[in-house]
Amino acid sequence: MASSKAFTMTGGDVAYSYSKNSTIQRDGVDAVKEQIKEAILENFDLKRLGFDTSSTAVIKIADLGCSVGPNTFFVMENIIEAVELKFLQAKNQNLAALEFQAFFNDHYENDFNTLFKTLPPSRKYFAAGVPGSFHDRLFPKSSLHLAHISYALHFLSKVPKEVVDRNKSNVFNSSEKEVVEAYSTQLESDIECFLNARAEELVPGGLMLILAGAVPDGVPISDTVIGVCNDVMGSCLKDLVKMGVLGEEKVNSFNVPIYLVTPTELEAILRTNENFSIEKMEKHVQPMKKPLSPEGYALAVRSSLDAVTRNHFGDEFAEQIFNHFNTKVEPNFSKFQGALRNSLNLFILLKRI
Amino acid sequence: MASSKAFTMTGGDVAYSYSKNSTIQRDGVDAVKEQIKEAILENFDLKRLGFDTSSTAVIKIADLGCSVGPNTFFVMENIIEAVELKFLQAKNQNLAALEFQAFFNDHYENDFNTLFKTLPPSRKYFAAGVPGSFHDRLFPKSSLHLAHISYALHFLSKVPKEVVDRNKSNVFNSSEKEVVEAYSTQLESDIECFLNARAEELVPGGLMLILAGAVPDGVPISDTVIGVCNDVMGSCLKDLVKMGVLGEEKVNSFNVPIYLVTPTELEAILRTNENFSIEKMEKHVQPMKKPLSPEGYALAVRSSLDAVTRNHFGDEFAEQIFNHFNTKVEPNFSKFQGALRNSLNLFILLKRI
Repeated sequence: MASSKAFTMTGGDVAYSYSKNSTIQRDGVDAVKEQIKEAILENFDLKRLGFDTSSTAVIKIADLGCSVGPNTFFVMENIIEAVELKFLQAKNQNLAALEFQAFFNDHYENDFNTLFKTLPPSRKYFAAGVPGSFHDRLFPKSSLHLAHISYALHFLSKVPKEVVDRNKSNVFNSSEKEVVEAYSTQLESDIECFLNARAEELVPGGLMLILAGAVPDGVPISDTVIGVCNDVMGSCLKDLVKMGVLGEEKVNSFNVPIYLVTPTELEAILRTNENFSIEKMEKHVQPMKKPLSPEGYALAVRSSLDAVTRNHFGDEFAEQIFNHFNTKVEPNFSKFQGALRNSLNLFILLKRI
Repeated sequence: MASSKAFTMTGGDVAYSYSKNSTIQRDGVDAVKEQIKEAILENFDLKRLGFDTSSTAVIKIADLGCSVGPNTFFVMENIIEAVELKFLQAKNQNLAALEFQAFFNDHYENDFNTLFKTLPPSRKYFAAGVPGSFHDRLFPKSSLHLAHISYALHFLSKVPKEVVDRNKSNVFNSSEKEVVEAYSTQLESDIECFLNARAEELVPGGLMLILAGAVPDGVPISDTVIGVCNDVMGSCLKDLVKMGVLGEEKVNSFNVPIYLVTPTELEAILRTNENFSIEKMEKHVQPMKKPLSPEGYALAVRSSLDAVTRNHFGDEFAEQIFNHFNTKVEPNFSKFQGALRNSLNLFILLKRI
């Protein structure tokens, strides 16, 4: 099992909270709404799951790495609507006898208080929160029918040892071959842990819906969102060292545990796992219903990186780092926008064999 | 369904938090440890529950109104140890194939963040938090094998309408016949909602363990913990009205939604429900391993009443009320101690028919 370091989105109600700065993720999730429906209608096999003969059915669904709402609530609703439709089409089921249990999972440090308080008051499911890393076991065996994970697989359980040992922050050298390889290897091992845990938890015939941020094959890291973000963060940290605000050692030991795969890389990892069949794997361009302003971009980056920055530098320095980061978003905005156009979303459907 | 008002214990890490001021509850839970074990060994019917033939078993347990730790974790451990022993004794089960899923339930406003962060790192169960009132449905049908509730049934879903309409705080007149009757009727209706919800959720043969605070038959309210607490709170609020700190109307509309049953009352309510059989009902004197100091007493009262007081009076006034309340505990200490000796714990085992 991986012993996963917490990498949580910002909770609560602050300006840079995830709940206020997750429209990119929302757009991505919305864009695959139809795909999710189709995937469930075509692959949620009522007979194999034992629902064809029973008079009642309780469907158990998990959203892994859900952060706080509202995106996770939209996803849950989408999935449930599709399952209801599947039962309706089967006709031998009474829809009223269907019940849903929804498990919302994220790290122990996730803001579950906010998640729970913002649950939709009229909802079709019994809600539960499940704390812990999705690289580990979270549920009893054969206790889930559907699992969903979006925009979360790229968070590594830890910074790879090889990168830590270099004592040079990955934000300065994210394109170097050794660094890329170390991150890629770490991700491979993390996804293996993830799949092995889910293989225990999903019933045979159970489905896993994955929406993963990725970069197109052949695009260099420097031209990806992560690459540009690292560059800007790197120059920001360098400035603060020069200004005497941050110590060089502290900066050198700062690494961001994120890695975006290519489609080829991810497919290879998924194929090695013998417990799941790949039923679908589609590439989608990251949609942007409303383009982010530089300020919106800065807030979105912070909602994602605030916790890891705070953990490393402390609250006060994190504040200074992001204030400085904000001033650098505008001058680098065309790079950010270009990188976003290089962002791919992979929509994947796995079935538990 | 009752629409239950939140009545949450104080979360977080403050001096008057529930986690730091729940030794009375801890002593009570510890005192029935053996009873819980015995109840499970004698009544957890592996054959009826379908565990006698399966090669693996997932046991699902809920603690209802769990607040934050650590008490709920001790209880969960006790229950799990007893179930393991039961399986061991049955001998046809491989203990390694047993898995447990523990559901920790309390109101949406409960401090689940603290609950999750303080989960015992090495534990025998998969943990989940379930937000919502235990007067309503919380789980899918037939999805629990064991439910536990301690020191929580006395929280009413709301202040009875008759009491609200009197526009005279119940802390001034908790012994009046009309008030007592209105509270008693409300509790009866709340427990019915509670039992009906659990009847859906527990599998046939499933067990419900109840530890309920109560007062001996025939003891007047004024001689109980609630009575003394109301008296002291009442005189405290009167002082603050006189001092011009609180308005009279605000004070008159303040009611504490708590009612302690007598054993006869509770037994009558439980007997009317046709979904459960009463397997055990024992009276225990509330144990006190280490007597509380006046200060400890004041903190314990606040850990329980802080939320309801804050909700009604606002943060600033709640602070003043408890500061004033604290000065009144010492002069009334013998009354508090006497009332505590009048406290009964009822240990009840119900079985889902």
